[in-house]
Formats: sequence, C-alpha cells, structure tokens
Amino acid sequence: MKEHVLEFRVRYQETDGQGRVHHANYLTFFEMGRTEQMRAAGMDYRDMERDGFFLVVARADLKYHAGAKFDDVLRLVTTTVRMKGATVEHKYRVFRDEQLIVEGHTRLGCIDSQGKVRRLPSWLIGEQEPLEETDG
Amino acid sequence: MKEHVLEFRVRYQETDGQGRVHHANYLTFFEMGRTEQMRAAGMDYRDMERDGFFLVVARADLKYHAGAKFDDVLRLVTTTVRMKGATVEHKYRVFRDEQLIVEGHTRLGCIDSQGKVRRLPSWLIGEQEPLEETDG
Amino acid sequence: MKEHVLEFRVRYQETDGQGRVHHANYLTFFEMGRTEQMRAAGMDYRDMERDGFFLVVARADLKYHAGAKFDDVLRLVTTTVRMKGATVEHKYRVFRDEQLIVEGHTRLGCIDSQGKVRRLPSWLIGEQEPLEETDG
Amino acid sequence: MKEHVLEFRVRYQETDGQGRVHHANYLTFFEMGRTEQMRAAGMDYRDMERDGFFLVVARADLKYHAGAKFDDVLRLVTTTVRMKGATVEHKYRVFRDEQLIVEGHTRLGCIDSQGKVRRLPSWLIGEQEPLEETDG
Repeated sequence: MKEHVLEFRVRYQETDGQGRVHHANYLTFFEMGRTEQMRAAGMDYRDMERDGFFLVVARADLKYHAGAKFDDVLRLVTTTVRMKGATVEHKYRVFRDEQLIVEGHTRLGCIDSQGKVRRLPSWLIGEQEPLEETDG
Repeated sequence: MKEHVLEFRVRYQETDGQGRVHHANYLTFFEMGRTEQMRAAGMDYRDMERDGFFLVVARADLKYHAGAKFDDVLRLVTTTVRMKGATVEHKYRVFRDEQLIVEGHTRLGCIDSQGKVRRLPSWLIGEQEPLEETDG
Repeated sequence: MKEHVLEFRVRYQETDGQGRVHHANYLTFFEMGRTEQMRAAGMDYRDMERDGFFLVVARADLKYHAGAKFDDVLRLVTTTVRMKGATVEHKYRVFRDEQLIVEGHTRLGCIDSQGKVRRLPSWLIGEQEPLEETDG
Repeated sequence: MKEHVLEFRVRYQETDGQGRVHHANYLTFFEMGRTEQMRAAGMDYRDMERDGFFLVVARADLKYHAGAKFDDVLRLVTTTVRMKGATVEHKYRVFRDEQLIVEGHTRLGCIDSQGKVRRLPSWLIGEQEPLEETDG
C-alpha cells in the first residue's frame, strides 16, 4: 500500500526539559500522519465519525533512535500495512533529513458510538479488501 | 466566595526546552482548579454536561511572575469572583512555597449542546444568586 | 509592523471532550505564529537561544469567540505591536474562513540564561527601534 | 521488584473529541508513575539530571483495552522489571476500579549531557545489580 509523506516543524511546546521532543508527542504525530494519508486518498476521517464509525487505538509501539529538537523539520512516512475487518495497522517512520529518529506501529479498531466493534466502512477499504481476503 | 486550594506536582511532559513549565499548561491547571473547587462544594462538572450544560472559556488572562520546574510542588488557589446569569468568573494564583508564580483570571460562559447561551443551573449558583441580584 | 499569516489544521489530540479545540492550545498556536513570523523575517529563534537570549511569556490574554473542531483549517494572523527594550508584544487573531475564532495578545520579556532581564538583541529589533524611541 | 501505585484524576484537557483520554497521554502517565516510584524509594530523578545522567525513552509499547473519561480516577501500577547496565525497563497497568484500561512497557536508556550511553548510577541500581548479574 502507498506511503504517505508529511513534513512539519517541531513546536516549542512539544519539547521537554531535556530540550528534545517529548516522547509522547510521536503518537500525536502518527495520528496526523494517518489522517493526512486518508485525506491524500480522497477520504476524510470526519466523515467516518459523522457516519458513526470511530477509530480507536488498540496497540501502539515505538522505537526511539534519536532526539528531535525545537524547530527541526521532521518527515513522517506513514504506511498502511494491513486493513481488514475491523482493524487497520499502520507503520510510521520519522526522519530528520536522512536520519531515522523514531519508528512506530499502531493497530486501530473500528467501533460505533456504542463502543461495539464494526467492520471498517467499505469506502475506506475500497479495492484492497478482496486482495486481503485472498490472502486469508 | 470560598477559596479552593489544590496542590500538585509538575510533570516532566509539562516542561519545555527552557526547563520550565510551558506557559500554556497554566490554563490546564486553572481548569483542574475550578473542577476540584466544584467537587469540594459537592458538585460535579460531569453532571452539568450530562444535564446538557457546558461551560466554555470566553476570556482568559495570565500574568507570569516566575518559572516552575519539573517536580516542583505547586499550590493553586482558585476563587470564584462572580457567578451570574450565564457567566462564571474565577481568579487563580499559583504558588511555589510562598512565591507567586502565575496569576490568572477566566470568564466562562454556559451553553447547551446546540451552542446556545443558557443560564447557569440553579444548583450551581445556589444561594449566591440573590446576593448578586441585590447588587445589580 | 507587518502581519504574518500561518495556516494549519487542527489535530485530533488538540480537541477535548466537547469536540472543540481545548482553549489552552491557542497559546501554543500563538507561539507557532511568532516563531514563523521571525523566520519569515529571516531570523531564527534558535539563534537567540544559542546567543544566550531567551524569550519568556510575561502576560497573555485571550478572547474566545467560537470553537474550532478537528480538521478545521485555521488561519493565524500574528502582528508585532511593540518591540522595545526587553519587551515584545504581539497580537494574534485566529480565523476559520472569515470567522474570527480567537484573538489574543502576549507580552514577552527577554532574559539571559541566569534569568536576568536583557535588552532584545539589536538584530531582532532592527530598524524599528528608532521609530519606537521617537514615540516615547 | 516492588510495585508502585499512583492514583490520579483525568483532566478535561486530556480527553479528545471522542470524550476519552487521548491515547498519547498514557505515556505521560507512565512517566509520572516511574517518577513517583523513584521518589517512593527515596530517590529523586532531578538529582540524576543534576549529576549529569538523563533517562531517555528507547522503546515503548501500549495495549489499550478500554477508554477512560474526564474525571475518572485511574490507578496506575508501575513495576520495574529490569535494571541493568544502562537500561531500565518498567511495565505499567492502568485500572479504573478493577477494570484494566491500558497496559504498557517502556525501556529507558541512561545517557550523559553529550548523549553518550552511561551505566545507571549505582545509587539507583542499589542491591539489585548483583542479582541481575547472577542471571547473565
């Protein structure tokens, strides 16, 4: 599946007393990455919520290789690695120039407003679903 | 009206690259202060939202006198200075030991789920309302 | 002095339980605005810190006119309204399309690494200083 | 190694547009947990930094089982699972009453102010080190 690339600058508020980006912010960056990836594919996460589908994070893991500082320009590469049933998995790599700063992975689950697990909307999965089902 | 005192420690995440609490966090501290003040008075902000009343911040101002650092124990004094109609005003003072670190003031408005201005629920205003009305 | 315009999207993490941008985030947006304003003028706040000058927020005030939601594109207009001695004042207006969402004002003080008040570096003030002094 | 238990309330600012604690905040909660665990053992993370030792997060993983809401009282159980050389590993479990909300794990590395890897200070490791070395 396609990679999405997002560039952004580190905000002062995102640094901590060590002068580096506080490690929790990378989960927020990942969320920006997958939101922009959807938008780049012509979809809008707000539409999902309006239709009563909510994506919630079920798993996340992160490896931190180096620190980023205020005003650094970071490049976030978001890749969808799996999308099937009620689950989407993404991986993320954050670079400063060619240096890998952080990499991570999330698994999201799709629920409705009552918190019940729901299959991902078909417009989100699109033509990828049949391929996935062939794998299974 | 009564002062409410809340003590808490500065989290590492709340500091920034200068090693001090990032200035935006004081608005979050103020919000904790007024929430705990309500609770201390036997009321619960969640109940307001369940009843369809939402408090939104209309005005805020802050004066920063000194920086706070990671792990400092801060003492937040919250005072309701006015509560009338659809509006509540609080003032806040944040101390480290006897040193005044930050002081601030907020004005909150009460709205319903459609965003329309609503009078504060009577259980919140309690016996203070008549006194205010005598003033007007 | 010149206005600087910055557009950015609201992140999911920036919203709160009311589905609107949490009010404390606007102080972080303002900080982005003045950082980008400096950059647009060919200056870099990191250079100030490397030279031993730190800007700290002394005053802030905000008026909230409407809520912003996840994924809204906001337009932040930052204006330097005063720059003299050890002090810089900015005003900020945040718009969604033509609607004014939030406006604010900050006063920053310049200190050194020991926390002593210092005049703003001359390269920051540039040619604006004489004009200010004529006013005084 | 000993478990440490910390109770705290969810702040409004920590919730997101879904009305639940934004998933990134749990990394901040974990950081509070290990800081308080150190303090409960008579140690102070600020002393480490004053001595020139900095703990940086190298790995983190989280499993989210349920959402927490504004004003929920959460109970965070922090356990040190390994402390050897330049590395400390903790696990974390966050409960609301008896329900497990989130569990996680972090690996921290110890560096000096130049970013070089350093053995953990002996006062931190204490008597646990010999036991670990017997394992190896």
